[in-house]
Amino acid sequence: MTILSHPTLPHLEHLGGALNFVDEIHEVINPMALFEDFTLQEHGILCEHMECFAAPKGVTILQEGLEGDFLVLILTGQVSVVKTTASGGQEVVTHVGPGGFLGEMSLIDGKHRFASCITTTPTDFAVLSREDLTNILAAYPHTGNKLLMLLLQIVTHRLRDSTTRMLPVQSPDWV
Amino acid sequence: MTILSHPTLPHLEHLGGALNFVDEIHEVINPMALFEDFTLQEHGILCEHMECFAAPKGVTILQEGLEGDFLVLILTGQVSVVKTTASGGQEVVTHVGPGGFLGEMSLIDGKHRFASCITTTPTDFAVLSREDLTNILAAYPHTGNKLLMLLLQIVTHRLRDSTTRMLPVQSPDWV
Repeated sequence: MTILSHPTLPHLEHLGGALNFVDEIHEVINPMALFEDFTLQEHGILCEHMECFAAPKGVTILQEGLEGDFLVLILTGQVSVVKTTASGGQEVVTHVGPGGFLGEMSLIDGKHRFASCITTTPTDFAVLSREDLTNILAAYPHTGNKLLMLLLQIVTHRLRDSTTRMLPVQSPDWV
Repeated sequence: MTILSHPTLPHLEHLGGALNFVDEIHEVINPMALFEDFTLQEHGILCEHMECFAAPKGVTILQEGLEGDFLVLILTGQVSVVKTTASGGQEVVTHVGPGGFLGEMSLIDGKHRFASCITTTPTDFAVLSREDLTNILAAYPHTGNKLLMLLLQIVTHRLRDSTTRMLPVQSPDWV
């Protein structure tokens, strides 16, 4: 079998543009109420701008501490999210399956990955890069608005969850 | 002096549409690198869709626990951000001055305010509601993209800051 490569993740099998996976993407995204506002045509626009990859079990998709500029949408399989602790150990923060988004902070700010994401089963996933996002915004601004609203809802949900838990160590420059 | 009222914040003096304050808004926003991508015309579009208010010292602009659907941009003055602690006390989380954004989580998800914001000096501020945002997205989708990107950068900055501090109490459904 010839394994195709792609510069975003050259060590993984490149499955091609996400348009080949529009049904899978529609299927994992559909149960998310957040996405109900996208038309089928807009799902197609998103898929035109995403690339799909396949990773076997035990592969690091996102590496904590490395800079990155793309997010990952899990289509099949599962990854564990692993973070280095203060004592230098590794802690599994959570597991993420189909429909889960990973890496959106780095997509937005281009900074280092907060945690590593490691496949626990063979996993297919779609990638949206900063360049893809920029192209969608330029060519399809209304669809772009919906996509940005979705990302805002995801990031806000995480912020609301985390701030509820971390008040005692709140940073003075937080707001 | 007749104090004008506005349904968003009926207990405060309504200063009118933000277009009357385009210079002030430009001045507080300009130092934010995040906003450099907005043209003067786009600042005008934002101002057309925002309302301005004046509050004396000691007034609660945002009330912890209440639902809300607007964000606040501080133009002059200062507010303290106050959060109820687990023991039922009040803790000042931070202070926010001109150019500071407050309340964007509720703008996005319509849920309760995370903290209260109380003026510590006489304070003028602009308000952007969910309806204003929707109108901007519909009429000016490219400007809307820039505004949503700005909000994404603000929320992502806060999320990155908070998640760095809260790993030991990470929620299993976080990602």
